[in-house]
Amino acid sequence: MNFSDLLNAQVDKSNSLLCVGLDPDVNKLPEQFQNTPNQLFEFNKAIIDATHDLVCAFKPNSAYYEAHGPEGVMQLRDTISYIHETYPGIPVILDAKRADIGNTNDQYATFVFDYLGSDAVTLHPYLGREALEPFFARKEKGLIILCRTSNPGAGEFQDLMVDGKTMYSHVAKQVSQSWNIAGNCSLVVGATYPKELEEVRAIVGPDMPFLMPGVGAQGGDIKAAVEAGIGAKKRGLIINSARGVIFASSGADFAEAARKVATETRDEINKYR
Amino acid sequence: MNFSDLLNAQVDKSNSLLCVGLDPDVNKLPEQFQNTPNQLFEFNKAIIDATHDLVCAFKPNSAYYEAHGPEGVMQLRDTISYIHETYPGIPVILDAKRADIGNTNDQYATFVFDYLGSDAVTLHPYLGREALEPFFARKEKGLIILCRTSNPGAGEFQDLMVDGKTMYSHVAKQVSQSWNIAGNCSLVVGATYPKELEEVRAIVGPDMPFLMPGVGAQGGDIKAAVEAGIGAKKRGLIINSARGVIFASSGADFAEAARKVATETRDEINKYR
Repeated sequence: MNFSDLLNAQVDKSNSLLCVGLDPDVNKLPEQFQNTPNQLFEFNKAIIDATHDLVCAFKPNSAYYEAHGPEGVMQLRDTISYIHETYPGIPVILDAKRADIGNTNDQYATFVFDYLGSDAVTLHPYLGREALEPFFARKEKGLIILCRTSNPGAGEFQDLMVDGKTMYSHVAKQVSQSWNIAGNCSLVVGATYPKELEEVRAIVGPDMPFLMPGVGAQGGDIKAAVEAGIGAKKRGLIINSARGVIFASSGADFAEAARKVATETRDEINKYR
Repeated sequence: MNFSDLLNAQVDKSNSLLCVGLDPDVNKLPEQFQNTPNQLFEFNKAIIDATHDLVCAFKPNSAYYEAHGPEGVMQLRDTISYIHETYPGIPVILDAKRADIGNTNDQYATFVFDYLGSDAVTLHPYLGREALEPFFARKEKGLIILCRTSNPGAGEFQDLMVDGKTMYSHVAKQVSQSWNIAGNCSLVVGATYPKELEEVRAIVGPDMPFLMPGVGAQGGDIKAAVEAGIGAKKRGLIINSARGVIFASSGADFAEAARKVATETRDEINKYR
């Protein structure tokens, strides 16, 4: 099953556009996970168990695992395996923001898909489509290209005007018109910029899903973001919240607190679908 | 000592602008490293021993290690430690092409500098300077920003015209005029595009070093690249060759063959300095 079908099936099953970001910043883990073996995996496992029926996807960010070296990379793989084995049908997006020249991307694709078993990956557009060929060769996998990111300084290059249009709108156009032959491309468009989100939706049409970071801790407004970005059949958004959900409480009730915030966020999103 | 000083000292010591790319593609390793423990590290060790006096830097590309999961990451760290312990003074550039939002880049900086012990890292410009703050906080480390890459399809976005100038020239201008406050920024400019290289050198002035991939297997012409890109005091270029050097022979003589090609490449570069 390809990534779009997997995603849509899970959206319908969970009635949710919420994606929970598994970014286990070790300094923020509840006390019970401090100085314990496999702390990242064990924390994730509790979050996954508490939220699996409320999400359309999980999105671990590779950086939070790599920071711990080989031990972290192992726990990233274990986290992805745990999701696939325990809750089959939930897609896992690896937020890795990779992109190099072709023969090097071949190695990254091996890491992301063969070693880790991810269903989708985030990619930088800067080297162009040709360099990303080893990712495109994985037709069943989701390729999620950075378009308009959620950070405050995103506009430095993304807002530069090219032929009267912004750089990010050129990325959106290229990806939707030239790159998306196998129908497996998505875009990253931050919830913190609803005007830009609406513009990108108009460029690519209703069918392409957007990975939308920026709600929760980053402050993006859910109503504005959903209304600006929603796609066909009231789907087409993968709305990520990481810190806002997984660190909702730093106490022993962290899993219940995560479930509570995830439920509220899902329901809030659904109000505006 | 900061990265520029480290680099310049090694350039002078080795009388070389050659950087050897440690990209141990497992399918190309000589037979003696097939199916042996720590094959990436052991191969690298032989290459490092054979070429250390001929280089201004070594550049492992993270992808070739990540493809092997935790075992690969460990061998990447061991490779970097080996260089620092055995041949102190040779800078190690981690080619990782990272860039995420700020709090995530903090984790990547931990991986690249604290866990691996790299002296410099390659970064994507797309999210802007603000997102890269955790890297900029490491003032003594080299930050090497992708500007005009060496791949055939590099121009898809990099050549788009913004106010009558290319996207890559805007990246060069921003990095040299706004980002380089601590003097630790460099740019990636491919040897395969000497005209663009000359243009970028004119924008940033003579002092900023360029990491220049694309000679050797990628076919960039050394004479044209050196003449177009050389900086102050006949330095300012880190000319990378990976496959062309490390896989010069696939036989038992691979280390001697690598030394021979590295010597020839260094001397060829020096002819045009």
